Amino acid sequence: MLEGLKDSVLLANRRLVSSGLVVLTWGNASGYDPETGLVVIKPSGVDYDRMSADDMVVVDLGGKVVEGSLRPSSDTATHIEIYRNFAGVRGVVHTHSVEATAWAQAAREIPCYGTTHADTFHGSVPVTRTLSESEVEEAYELNTGRVIVERFAGLEPLAVPGVLVAGHAPFTWGKSPADAANHAIALEAIARMARLTEAVSAASPVPLLAPYVGEKHYQRKHGKNAYYGQSAPDGGNG
Amino acid sequence: MLEGLKDSVLLANRRLVSSGLVVLTWGNASGYDPETGLVVIKPSGVDYDRMSADDMVVVDLGGKVVEGSLRPSSDTATHIEIYRNFAGVRGVVHTHSVEATAWAQAAREIPCYGTTHADTFHGSVPVTRTLSESEVEEAYELNTGRVIVERFAGLEPLAVPGVLVAGHAPFTWGKSPADAANHAIALEAIARMARLTEAVSAASPVPLLAPYVGEKHYQRKHGKNAYYGQSAPDGGNG
Amino acid sequence: MLEGLKDSVLLANRRLVSSGLVVLTWGNASGYDPETGLVVIKPSGVDYDRMSADDMVVVDLGGKVVEGSLRPSSDTATHIEIYRNFAGVRGVVHTHSVEATAWAQAAREIPCYGTTHADTFHGSVPVTRTLSESEVEEAYELNTGRVIVERFAGLEPLAVPGVLVAGHAPFTWGKSPADAANHAIALEAIARMARLTEAVSAASPVPLLAPYVGEKHYQRKHGKNAYYGQSAPDGGNG
Amino acid sequence: MLEGLKDSVLLANRRLVSSGLVVLTWGNASGYDPETGLVVIKPSGVDYDRMSADDMVVVDLGGKVVEGSLRPSSDTATHIEIYRNFAGVRGVVHTHSVEATAWAQAAREIPCYGTTHADTFHGSVPVTRTLSESEVEEAYELNTGRVIVERFAGLEPLAVPGVLVAGHAPFTWGKSPADAANHAIALEAIARMARLTEAVSAASPVPLLAPYVGEKHYQRKHGKNAYYGQSAPDGGNG
Repeated sequence: MLEGLKDSVLLANRRLVSSGLVVLTWGNASGYDPETGLVVIKPSGVDYDRMSADDMVVVDLGGKVVEGSLRPSSDTATHIEIYRNFAGVRGVVHTHSVEATAWAQAAREIPCYGTTHADTFHGSVPVTRTLSESEVEEAYELNTGRVIVERFAGLEPLAVPGVLVAGHAPFTWGKSPADAANHAIALEAIARMARLTEAVSAASPVPLLAPYVGEKHYQRKHGKNAYYGQSAPDGGNG
Repeated sequence: MLEGLKDSVLLANRRLVSSGLVVLTWGNASGYDPETGLVVIKPSGVDYDRMSADDMVVVDLGGKVVEGSLRPSSDTATHIEIYRNFAGVRGVVHTHSVEATAWAQAAREIPCYGTTHADTFHGSVPVTRTLSESEVEEAYELNTGRVIVERFAGLEPLAVPGVLVAGHAPFTWGKSPADAANHAIALEAIARMARLTEAVSAASPVPLLAPYVGEKHYQRKHGKNAYYGQSAPDGGNG
Repeated sequence: MLEGLKDSVLLANRRLVSSGLVVLTWGNASGYDPETGLVVIKPSGVDYDRMSADDMVVVDLGGKVVEGSLRPSSDTATHIEIYRNFAGVRGVVHTHSVEATAWAQAAREIPCYGTTHADTFHGSVPVTRTLSESEVEEAYELNTGRVIVERFAGLEPLAVPGVLVAGHAPFTWGKSPADAANHAIALEAIARMARLTEAVSAASPVPLLAPYVGEKHYQRKHGKNAYYGQSAPDGGNG
Repeated sequence: MLEGLKDSVLLANRRLVSSGLVVLTWGNASGYDPETGLVVIKPSGVDYDRMSADDMVVVDLGGKVVEGSLRPSSDTATHIEIYRNFAGVRGVVHTHSVEATAWAQAAREIPCYGTTHADTFHGSVPVTRTLSESEVEEAYELNTGRVIVERFAGLEPLAVPGVLVAGHAPFTWGKSPADAANHAIALEAIARMARLTEAVSAASPVPLLAPYVGEKHYQRKHGKNAYYGQSAPDGGNG
C-alpha cells in the first residue's frame, strides 16, 4: 500500500538526519496521498538508521492506523491537522533544528533580511501563539495543529511553507515530502543567517530587505513567469 | 567478565566521539552492574579509535581495579560516587562538550526555554557549587561526585539526568550507558539552543517555557501514561 | 566543446558543496574562455550530485545558449557582466554561504582585522549599493552585475577578488574557476573570523590590522617578489 | 634522511586538516631532530591531500634547505626561532583556526575559565605584541618568532604550549609534532569555550577558574605525581 509514498517519506526522514537537522530521534516527516486520503508517517522514537520503508505507518485523516505494526509519530495529529486545512500540501516535516528552534523558543518571527529568505518564504516566518493550559491537557498535538492553522488566517501556506511553534520548534510543509524537507533545510539556514546578520549589523534594528527585491526573488522562483530551475514556471525544485 | 556491559560501555564511548562531543581524549563513559556491584569504565587517556571492549577496566565500588591491564579513567571516583548515591543509574558519561561546558564555566543553570529541554530534563539543568581548596587537594574526583550528590538533594536524578560541575564540565547519567550518552547529546543541544535563544530574543530576561507545556512534554515521554516511542509507557528510548 | 573548462567548472561547483558553502542548490560557478569568448556555467536548480560535465551550459557574452540542453543558472547575466568588465577574470562563483551572507544582509563591509584577510583581499571586502526598484524589475541579474562593476570603480578586481551584494550574498572571482572557489572559501572563513573577533574584542571599535602588516602578507603571496607557494612570484595557489 | 620524523610531520599536518583547523593551505607543522639539529617542515602552499612524506623539506637551523625539491613553508623562520629558543620543543604547528584566530585578531589573551583550559595551558594563553614596521619589512617571519620568544620571558614554553600572534593567528608546540597538533586542537576548543562562556555568563567580567582547581588539573596531567593517562607521571598523551 502506497509503496512509492513510503519510500519518499523514508528518504525525507533520512535527509533530515544527513542534513544535520535532527539529533537523536527529534524529527519526523510524513506524506499525504490525496486519492486515498491517507497519511504515511515515521514511527515514533525509532532510530533513523534502522528504519525501512516497511516501518512507515499509514494512518487515515482521523488518526486511525490503517497499516503498520509500529506506533506512528507522537506528532501525527499535528501533521494531519495541517493536511486537513492547507490545500495542496503533500508533505510535512517537524524538527528541533537548533537555529530555527532558538527563534521558536524566543517566540520571535524571523524577519526577511535577504534574498535567501525571500527565495523560499514570502514574508516573515510566522510564530504561533502559546497554547493554553487546557489546549495542552486535552488534545495537545491536535491543538498544536490548530494554533498553526489559526496563525495562517490570511496567509497562503504554500507561499509561507513553515511556522515556528512558540516554545517548541518548527514545522515545514510542501508539495511533497522532499519539498517539505527542503523547506526545513532552508528554514534552518535562514534562521542562522538572520541571527548572524543581527550580530554583525551596525544598525539596530537591522533594516529589512527592500520589499521589491524580495518580491522579485520570490516570483523568479515561484511566480507565473518563474525562470529559476529546469521546470519553471513551476520552479518548485528549491 | 561482564562482556555485554563492556561492549555497551565501549559503544557509548565511541558514540560520544561520533556525535562530536569529545575532542582528543576528553570524555569517558561507564556502566554499572547491580548484580555484581561492579563498574566498567574507559581506560584513562587512550585514543578512542584504538580501544577495544577488552581495554575496558572493571572496578568495584571502592575504586579497586578488579580486571583490566590499563588504568581506569582519572574520573572513576566521580562515576562511582554517582552510582553509590543515585538509585537506578546504570550508566554515567562525562564530556567537555563545548556548549554545555560554556554554561558550566559560567556557573549558570540552563533555564528551560522550550520543549526540547522539557523532553529530557524535568526543570533547569543544575550547577554544582565550586569545590573548596581542601576538597580539591584531598580527594578531588571523589569530592566532585560529592558536590554533585549534594546538589541533587530534593531532586530525582533520573528525571534530571545531568549536571554542570562549576568551572569544569557536564556529567550525565541514565538507565544504561547508551541512555547516559543520549543525555549527553541532548544536553549539548539544549545548551546550544538556550544560548541562541538568548541571542535572538527580543525580551530580556527570556521568558521560560510555560510550566504546563514542559510538564506535558516530560510526561508524554516519561510519565505513567507516556505515549512517545515504541516501548511507552517506559518511553526510555530518548 | 571546451571539455577541459567544463570539467573545471564542474569541479568548482562540487567543491562549493564539499566545503559546506552551498545548501540545497544555492550556488553556482562558471568559467570563461577568452579565446572563444564563451562562458561555461552550471545549469539552474540541478542537484549537485547528479550533475556531470555534459550538463554544463555554454553561453556567449550576449547570454545566448551556444551548447547544452539545460537552462543556464538564473544568475548567468551577473557572471557575464563580471567577465565583460574585469580583465583577467576566468572564473566566477556565487554562493549564499552563511557567514558572508550575514555581512551582505547587514550591508556592511568586512574590515581587515588580520593577516588571513590580508592574504586574500587587499583591503576591506566591499559591499554594493542596493539596486533601485526599476533596476530590479527590468534586468535584475544584469543590473546585479552592473552594481558590482560600479562598486569596483578605482579597485583592482584581482586584488579584491570578491564582493557582497547588499541584501543578497557574495560573488567571488579569480584566474580560474578553482581560484574563484578558493576565494569563496576564504571569504567565508574571513567573514566568520571578523564576526568572532568583534564578539571577543575588549575594544570597540575593534582596531584594524596595522596596514604595513596587511601589505606584507598580501605582497608575500601576490606581489612581484612573492615567496609563498611553489609557483611564486605568481603565488596564485591560495 | 629522518624518515620517521617526516612521517610524523606529515601525519601532524594531515591531522590539522581532519580536525577542521585548516582551511585551504593555511597551516603547517614541523618537527625537530635534536641529534642532527635539523627541522622537517611542510612545503609551502601544497594541497594536503597530495602531500607525501617525501615532499617534506629538511632545513637546518640557519634556514638552509638540506633536502627536498620543494620550497619549505613560508613560515619556516618562525618555526626555527621557536626551536632555537624553547628547550625540549620537538614539534611546532601554525594554523589560522577560526576561534583562536579571533582572539589573536582581537589581541586578547584567553583567560582560564575552566578545567579544559587548565588541563593544557598553565595560565592564560598569551598574545604577542604587534611587530613594528621595520620588523615586518626586514625579516618578517624571523621577527614573528622573536616576538613570540620575547613574550615568553618568564614563562615555561612546555607548560604554556602556544601563543596568539597579534593580528595574525596561533602557534603551538610540544614534545613531538603530534603533541603540537594536539595542542592546536585543544587551543581551538578552549578559545571557543571561552567565547561561549562570556556569551552565556550572567556576570561581567566572567570570574576566572579558582586557581587551586586549575593547578590541580594541570598537575594531575603534567606534574610529578600525574595520574592521568597510561604513561603518567609523564602524562603527555593529551
